Amino acid sequence: MTIHIGVVGTGMIGQDHIRRITDVVTGADVVAVADVDFDRAEEVASGINARALPTGHDVINDSLVDAVVVTSWGPTHAEYVLAAIEAGKYVFCEKPLATTAEDCLRIIEAEQAFGRRLVQVGFMRRYDAGYRSMKRVIDGGEIGSPLVMHCAHRNRTVPESYHSEMAVQDTAVHEIDTVRWLLDDEIVSAQVIKPRKTTKRFEHLQDPQIMLFETASGARIDLEVFVNCQYGYDIQCETVGETGVVRLPDPADVWLRSSAQLRTNVLQGWEQRFAAAFDLEFVEWVASMHDGRLAGPSAWDGYAAAVITDATTEALHSGRVVAVTLKDRPAFYGS
Amino acid sequence: MTIHIGVVGTGMIGQDHIRRITDVVTGADVVAVADVDFDRAEEVASGINARALPTGHDVINDSLVDAVVVTSWGPTHAEYVLAAIEAGKYVFCEKPLATTAEDCLRIIEAEQAFGRRLVQVGFMRRYDAGYRSMKRVIDGGEIGSPLVMHCAHRNRTVPESYHSEMAVQDTAVHEIDTVRWLLDDEIVSAQVIKPRKTTKRFEHLQDPQIMLFETASGARIDLEVFVNCQYGYDIQCETVGETGVVRLPDPADVWLRSSAQLRTNVLQGWEQRFAAAFDLEFVEWVASMHDGRLAGPSAWDGYAAAVITDATTEALHSGRVVAVTLKDRPAFYGS
Amino acid sequence: MTIHIGVVGTGMIGQDHIRRITDVVTGADVVAVADVDFDRAEEVASGINARALPTGHDVINDSLVDAVVVTSWGPTHAEYVLAAIEAGKYVFCEKPLATTAEDCLRIIEAEQAFGRRLVQVGFMRRYDAGYRSMKRVIDGGEIGSPLVMHCAHRNRTVPESYHSEMAVQDTAVHEIDTVRWLLDDEIVSAQVIKPRKTTKRFEHLQDPQIMLFETASGARIDLEVFVNCQYGYDIQCETVGETGVVRLPDPADVWLRSSAQLRTNVLQGWEQRFAAAFDLEFVEWVASMHDGRLAGPSAWDGYAAAVITDATTEALHSGRVVAVTLKDRPAFYGS
Amino acid sequence: MTIHIGVVGTGMIGQDHIRRITDVVTGADVVAVADVDFDRAEEVASGINARALPTGHDVINDSLVDAVVVTSWGPTHAEYVLAAIEAGKYVFCEKPLATTAEDCLRIIEAEQAFGRRLVQVGFMRRYDAGYRSMKRVIDGGEIGSPLVMHCAHRNRTVPESYHSEMAVQDTAVHEIDTVRWLLDDEIVSAQVIKPRKTTKRFEHLQDPQIMLFETASGARIDLEVFVNCQYGYDIQCETVGETGVVRLPDPADVWLRSSAQLRTNVLQGWEQRFAAAFDLEFVEWVASMHDGRLAGPSAWDGYAAAVITDATTEALHSGRVVAVTLKDRPAFYGS
Repeated sequence: MTIHIGVVGTGMIGQDHIRRITDVVTGADVVAVADVDFDRAEEVASGINARALPTGHDVINDSLVDAVVVTSWGPTHAEYVLAAIEAGKYVFCEKPLATTAEDCLRIIEAEQAFGRRLVQVGFMRRYDAGYRSMKRVIDGGEIGSPLVMHCAHRNRTVPESYHSEMAVQDTAVHEIDTVRWLLDDEIVSAQVIKPRKTTKRFEHLQDPQIMLFETASGARIDLEVFVNCQYGYDIQCETVGETGVVRLPDPADVWLRSSAQLRTNVLQGWEQRFAAAFDLEFVEWVASMHDGRLAGPSAWDGYAAAVITDATTEALHSGRVVAVTLKDRPAFYGS
Repeated sequence: MTIHIGVVGTGMIGQDHIRRITDVVTGADVVAVADVDFDRAEEVASGINARALPTGHDVINDSLVDAVVVTSWGPTHAEYVLAAIEAGKYVFCEKPLATTAEDCLRIIEAEQAFGRRLVQVGFMRRYDAGYRSMKRVIDGGEIGSPLVMHCAHRNRTVPESYHSEMAVQDTAVHEIDTVRWLLDDEIVSAQVIKPRKTTKRFEHLQDPQIMLFETASGARIDLEVFVNCQYGYDIQCETVGETGVVRLPDPADVWLRSSAQLRTNVLQGWEQRFAAAFDLEFVEWVASMHDGRLAGPSAWDGYAAAVITDATTEALHSGRVVAVTLKDRPAFYGS
Repeated sequence: MTIHIGVVGTGMIGQDHIRRITDVVTGADVVAVADVDFDRAEEVASGINARALPTGHDVINDSLVDAVVVTSWGPTHAEYVLAAIEAGKYVFCEKPLATTAEDCLRIIEAEQAFGRRLVQVGFMRRYDAGYRSMKRVIDGGEIGSPLVMHCAHRNRTVPESYHSEMAVQDTAVHEIDTVRWLLDDEIVSAQVIKPRKTTKRFEHLQDPQIMLFETASGARIDLEVFVNCQYGYDIQCETVGETGVVRLPDPADVWLRSSAQLRTNVLQGWEQRFAAAFDLEFVEWVASMHDGRLAGPSAWDGYAAAVITDATTEALHSGRVVAVTLKDRPAFYGS
Repeated sequence: MTIHIGVVGTGMIGQDHIRRITDVVTGADVVAVADVDFDRAEEVASGINARALPTGHDVINDSLVDAVVVTSWGPTHAEYVLAAIEAGKYVFCEKPLATTAEDCLRIIEAEQAFGRRLVQVGFMRRYDAGYRSMKRVIDGGEIGSPLVMHCAHRNRTVPESYHSEMAVQDTAVHEIDTVRWLLDDEIVSAQVIKPRKTTKRFEHLQDPQIMLFETASGARIDLEVFVNCQYGYDIQCETVGETGVVRLPDPADVWLRSSAQLRTNVLQGWEQRFAAAFDLEFVEWVASMHDGRLAGPSAWDGYAAAVITDATTEALHSGRVVAVTLKDRPAFYGS
């Protein structure tokens, strides 16, 4: 049985997920798409023998659509996710789940009212082989209780439209989810430190930033976000426990000895770095729908990310330590 | 349009390829299978909603079957591949293409008579990301002309049924194909050196073996085959050129610091080491059939591997350098 | 011409330096020693054919002594260094130069009054090959202007006498000097973050600690001090510049593949990690005395370290960001 | 008590050892030197306050000279070593001990006649930290019984005067001694394989060469000698045992991420690669003379190296496997 998917938003990431569902994932296909740019929707649809519909709501409510992928503009996410829940359909929503914590709460309430999980949020790092191996090491007790994490998130460059808050909302949000998941712990406060700005930047942008997080159990995380590091896309993560330290590997490529150096390539984009993770994310999402039990990042994780990024953004502006105040976690979302 | 595949041989590797075509590859499905053990064929068929047919020839000649995968017992390969060519169908044959060079030649002649490529041989290392990166480096001139290659092929253990000739025919055959492909050069002689046998072995088995190859251009390759190395599955390859050296990376996994050591896991089996390569092999095979132009390892590569492994086996027994005598390469198979 | 050295303090580190001057360094010997434990001084002296004198002042003022090494108890350092300056003799003082910033200032003033440099402070990391290579990379502009540094200082365990302030005064002080030297920049503020304490500790000890420093140019440094990490002695340092990142290597030892793992040893103590640095420190100190021009860490560096560690200690207690207030740097000590 | 050393031969390596004895080693000094170029001898002597004597024999027989270092032209080694033995003085002889196996035998006989060890041969790799660590791993049984070794000896370039036999006599001789020492086993045969020559060479030179050795216990060694590899000085060594594999590390230097690459420097010369080994070689030689018990590479090791390099040279010319025929090892030289 094939799961028929409708995609709302056919921009770059939407098209990439459509290609993934079409070419990589078995057991699912894309049958309907919509976009604010209807011509683009039609062009994408024609390439995969799907229908372009006038609006996202038309896609969500289409009788042939079993599940929805939301890859539209962030501010529209909540509306479409809520519509999908109302239609009783599974919905995969790219981050952010919603642009405000309030909207995330509305989604959580709607999902609970529906009675079982329908929503998955696109935190793809949980599907990366390296992070999964790190989680096995931590969960297996191989480093003892985690005390400290050191993270770095570096991009080669960002466009001029990228502003300082996006370092939190769009960039650090990945580490925020990853930390919560790896440590099985909740972030309770945030602080942002502003190093001297790189001169290889746009004047308006605070880059790099050092973000500091504290968890409920007292673990401390430092995260360097540096989105104009010039040399490549580089994700580093190290967890320090009571008896050992576990570290993500650098991606493996051939080693070259020439011209007095030993060297290997650094990847240049997140598309390459997390290509396999994106694939697995959709493979497992489709498999979990076939099983009838979602297992990926939940609406609660989307809500927590929203509250934590809000606190971190406030910390960026205030220079102070900002407490994260989450609602009590409903039993519906596990412990 | 979906390519309907028939699978001849539903043992371990056959089942794995069926799973791959079903779960990983898009644009193809398995519609018919056969096996010497009909019950096994039926069991496999039922799991994927395909038909079990009495014989491999029934599968090959089935009107619904567009392409054939041959994963039966080695000595039967030639017969099925020839039948597929006669039926004008694409055929993917696991190594070996045939158990004798003569049978390989019959296949080459039949394929040429048909007039275009139908046969692909299952040398999956050409689809491994590391080897592909190494090939890009060599082809790009980054190390100058290749002069020497150092290879190691280590398995944790082998069963008692594994005998000394299998180190050549089943194990080294992978490096033999890889060397020819990486260097774009032909192997012209072989020698085998016998170190003291490991005591962690069966008495009958010469393990390890050091195989030495020479290519037409004068490059020299040494290959350690050690199939009871105890510690894991470990594939090493280094190419030394006039101006530089390129080396395969070890697979990337997390690094752990604990108990006075810095360490990472060594993979234990070829299934893990080459899982992504097997997947890509089938993805590209199916894509190339959709395009109507096979690009993977050809019947000629299968023939060359047969002649070279025969020479190497003779070298194992004689202790001498044995010349490899290939027919002239037909223009049909490129230069 | 041999430089005759007198050593004040013949405890563990004093004995190690005596062995170094005797067995490793050419062009110098130890002719007189003193210790609060006169028996110990006599025992040490007899082993190297030197004289044990009643007090440190006797050593400093001995007519045969050309230069002094102060390795006595920290609170006595200032007194002996001042005495050496008064005697017009070169003096190598193990860290700290003095236990108070005021005493450091007295030394600076005395040295300036004398008219040329006599004092060198024992910050041995400046002599480590890895750090020196990092400094060459930074100074050569290979990573652009430094913006961020990530450091970790991990010890296997510490004795019960080690208390939380020592993480700053005895441990972090090495990174404090190293950062100043590597970046050629001054630290202007400090903050200390307290993760959950490891349970593999003594109750009184805050371990680990995360220290945050800011420099005059706006670079930011995070330093994890974790003195009961259990697995070994591990020094990590990474400098992030505008165009690249440079990282200390792990010490090189053989790589072992066995039992499903690829692994290498982690050193267990600072003695092994910095053995070559200690040797070079004394070789260069003696050579610089022969040249008549001290080049190593100066009394000013000792003073700065004292002020910064005081501020960091205050930050540890207060939880706040504490400004570092240094006197203006005299031209005597370079720019 | 200082050991007074006389040096015969003040060329580049002689001057380097003189500097080492003078500046690095404690407990020894150089008091007399000789050279075929007396002016050079005088110049060197004046720099260290030693005497230049007319001939090597004058140095050896000088009453102030306790021990001799022979760093003259290879063909003169045997004569000076025999003279030192006749004078009853310790003698450190740079490789080769003698240019013929016959002369080595004369030295062995003279030394045995004298009644205790006086001769040490300059195989400095036994003093390299990495090789020593590898030996500890092998001797400790951590990889089981050794079966195979893979070695590579690469130089950036060699001068035109370097000819094909020097790849054996001057270059491979280091691995020949190292293999014997690491495996505690004797080499019994040699074969040389000639890859296509690099075009970055002088026409007369066979470069690279692959040398194959067999030991008495049946271990097999392959050694790539490539003295115009262009990219640096690179020494690789891997020992494969019944249960594991141990490999030399690459020298540790900082890691740089910039311009889309992760890279570290490759050393360019043996002087840098083995600087610490050379130092330790002399430190331990001097210490062993103080103890009265030589422990380094013996005249027997020098003899074995001569016989094995002779066999390997014959193998280079003949293309055949050449047996190594050593005399029985006298009990005088241990088992």
